[in-house]
Amino acid sequence: MSLIKPQILKGFRDYLPDRMLARERLVDAAREVYRSYGFSPIDTPALEYSEILLGKGGAESDKQLFRFTDQGGRDVAMRFDLTVPLARFAAQHLQEIGTPFKRYHIATVWRAEKPQKGRFREFMQCDFDTIGTESNASDIETLLVIHDLLEAIGFDRFTVRVNNRRVLNGVLEQLGLSERAADVLRALDKLAKTGPLPVIEEMTERAGATREQAARVLELAALQGSPQSLLRDLEPLVGASETGRRGLEHLRELFAACRTAGIADERIALDVSIARGLDYYTGTIYETFLGQLPGIGSVCSGGRYDNLAELFTTQRLPGVGASLGLDRLLAAMEELGLVDLAATPAPVLVTVFDAGRIGDYFRIGRVLRHAGIDTEVFVDARPLGKQLKYASRKGFRVAVIAGEEEFARGAWTVKDLTRGEQREVPEADLVETVAEIVRAAPDK
Amino acid sequence: MSLIKPQILKGFRDYLPDRMLARERLVDAAREVYRSYGFSPIDTPALEYSEILLGKGGAESDKQLFRFTDQGGRDVAMRFDLTVPLARFAAQHLQEIGTPFKRYHIATVWRAEKPQKGRFREFMQCDFDTIGTESNASDIETLLVIHDLLEAIGFDRFTVRVNNRRVLNGVLEQLGLSERAADVLRALDKLAKTGPLPVIEEMTERAGATREQAARVLELAALQGSPQSLLRDLEPLVGASETGRRGLEHLRELFAACRTAGIADERIALDVSIARGLDYYTGTIYETFLGQLPGIGSVCSGGRYDNLAELFTTQRLPGVGASLGLDRLLAAMEELGLVDLAATPAPVLVTVFDAGRIGDYFRIGRVLRHAGIDTEVFVDARPLGKQLKYASRKGFRVAVIAGEEEFARGAWTVKDLTRGEQREVPEADLVETVAEIVRAAPDK
Repeated sequence: MSLIKPQILKGFRDYLPDRMLARERLVDAAREVYRSYGFSPIDTPALEYSEILLGKGGAESDKQLFRFTDQGGRDVAMRFDLTVPLARFAAQHLQEIGTPFKRYHIATVWRAEKPQKGRFREFMQCDFDTIGTESNASDIETLLVIHDLLEAIGFDRFTVRVNNRRVLNGVLEQLGLSERAADVLRALDKLAKTGPLPVIEEMTERAGATREQAARVLELAALQGSPQSLLRDLEPLVGASETGRRGLEHLRELFAACRTAGIADERIALDVSIARGLDYYTGTIYETFLGQLPGIGSVCSGGRYDNLAELFTTQRLPGVGASLGLDRLLAAMEELGLVDLAATPAPVLVTVFDAGRIGDYFRIGRVLRHAGIDTEVFVDARPLGKQLKYASRKGFRVAVIAGEEEFARGAWTVKDLTRGEQREVPEADLVETVAEIVRAAPDK
Repeated sequence: MSLIKPQILKGFRDYLPDRMLARERLVDAAREVYRSYGFSPIDTPALEYSEILLGKGGAESDKQLFRFTDQGGRDVAMRFDLTVPLARFAAQHLQEIGTPFKRYHIATVWRAEKPQKGRFREFMQCDFDTIGTESNASDIETLLVIHDLLEAIGFDRFTVRVNNRRVLNGVLEQLGLSERAADVLRALDKLAKTGPLPVIEEMTERAGATREQAARVLELAALQGSPQSLLRDLEPLVGASETGRRGLEHLRELFAACRTAGIADERIALDVSIARGLDYYTGTIYETFLGQLPGIGSVCSGGRYDNLAELFTTQRLPGVGASLGLDRLLAAMEELGLVDLAATPAPVLVTVFDAGRIGDYFRIGRVLRHAGIDTEVFVDARPLGKQLKYASRKGFRVAVIAGEEEFARGAWTVKDLTRGEQREVPEADLVETVAEIVRAAPDK
């Protein structure tokens, strides 16, 4: 029989232990923060009826659907994001879940994109949303969650940039661009990427603005300063527009509440240039940039929307939420050496010297585990040198060793693998000795 | 525009917060135990080339594949288990991962089975394996992991039943049934389900054994007693068969090591009647039964195999592992009321009485969170009564309340929602008061 070539599909990836451990740390951090704010997890099927998913992300996303006919002749497709499934879920279970409904969803999505560096056809999304309320309190909370999330992942220097589509709409209203708002904002959204000239071109040629109107929009986007001073600058620009005034009021309340709640001023900013391309957003919008990794763009983005599930129910469901680009963040952190790539989740290896005493090696493994110290027992029959090589290749911190003589003395040799030092201790002192080394070792 | 009906595919499920929180507790318990033994996580794509998956689980499993042609004309399918992807993964990454390789994989799989009670087309598997070693130490460790896993999930009364295919093969060798071993054991595997008569029939009619041979095999399967006494009983039955003697030796070592390692005798048993249908297994085999839920069959099963990836590589990869039927276990636990179905991950709700002080409510939420107490702030504008109703519907334990008067006094009212008692405390005492109630409340 000829062998089958072991290979995976283009655009897909295997996660080996080192990268998977790092991914699990990110997922855990996100989960802990979401839960600490009372967001609950949900899950939805990977496969949905195609009609649920089609047309929700535009023609582009339809083309990227993994779509097929199942054994029962049903037209089905794999989810391409977690927002459309949330809309379907909310419409279907509204009575059971009640509002306000705060959920997080950490799950894999699939898009048949052209594979390229940093773009995959399968990746994990990490979303949280509050639905069924228009209260600005949930917009404020969304910002607090993003803030705590980045902190929990281990970042110190980051900025959550906030804006409000209502303010933008108010200014456009004052400029007589109300009816072209969507096209103008879609053009504006490209500013950071392309610079001002192509944006002006798009605004005048495709969005139908005059050159003067376009220039005024870019002036607006160029405004800089503290949130407080920007809020003052924006006041005359929104003028009498009620939409605009309401947007400003929400931003004012948001920045004041964040200060009261204890968020450092430098961690949040008002950025009137961010518009987020999606027409979907209607109020507060968020983007998050890392001081160490400005190049990768926003790592956590989101905003407020008016009506989540209008295609599935007549019940209006306003909400606000954001999404952490987990796999992209992980790839970037890895590139910068910000990820510990040890290939073992356990810091301690019990080596096996005398196979006849295997029960004792397992016994000592359990003793260490019961003390809260994750401990692997080496399970293959190999010389001690090879076992220690395995320990250092995988990134263990401590090796625990015993042969005939140690057993006779009721002792264990403890080897600090980072410092290369070792000493023998009586079994009664083993847990404390090992715990001390593990505590002293960085990061485990 | 007409609405799209929000519905999911037959055989699939949405996980609402209560059930999803329970599932996450199971996943966490499994993960912690696997890691504590040094097993590392991996992940593989949900989609593989069909040729990787086809023919690996027999004709039945091929028919159940969600298989289609992707945009690039590739014949692809969704994984139906985690063992075939492990085989492909091991063959592909052998150089990087080295041996022994201990991995866990907790992930979703898809099978287009006929939907029926307790059977779904999408479910989560929770596997762990040690590959690249024939050492009996890893068989012993597998049993320890299964034991600790059940304990960590919260079960007290359970039995891991162990057998060894070599012992069975040795006995069959002595009975002159070597060449019919696979068929005979496949018949034997049905004993618990069908009783002896259909098994004898299958052994004689399909496996080609004489009635006397079949009767002897059933006599073997009926043997009962402590592992020690059974091992003595089995000795004459395997006679001079080297395979059989080696199997007995491994079982002897396993039971002795588990006793030394501190596993209670009643938690493990030698059960010579379990054969596990799959030809795949070649040595130790495991099944796990719950004292409270004997009806659901084995909740954690596995065994030793000779060669994991023979279809993908010429490199021989022996191994041993087991799989926890996570969603099935969860469904059974739920039916028995063993699952706490609170719909909030956070025990504390800060109610919002004065929207103008929203920053203060968020501030106090952060104070409690920093003390390690998960705390939701109510984000919608509703009367206090409705907020407290929300709290009790979701299963919160504590409500923290403040209005104008409390703010003036620098105090908060703390309400124990389980006991219905409340009292006012100065802000400085808030964390301790809340922590006390949370600690006293069951299960959070």
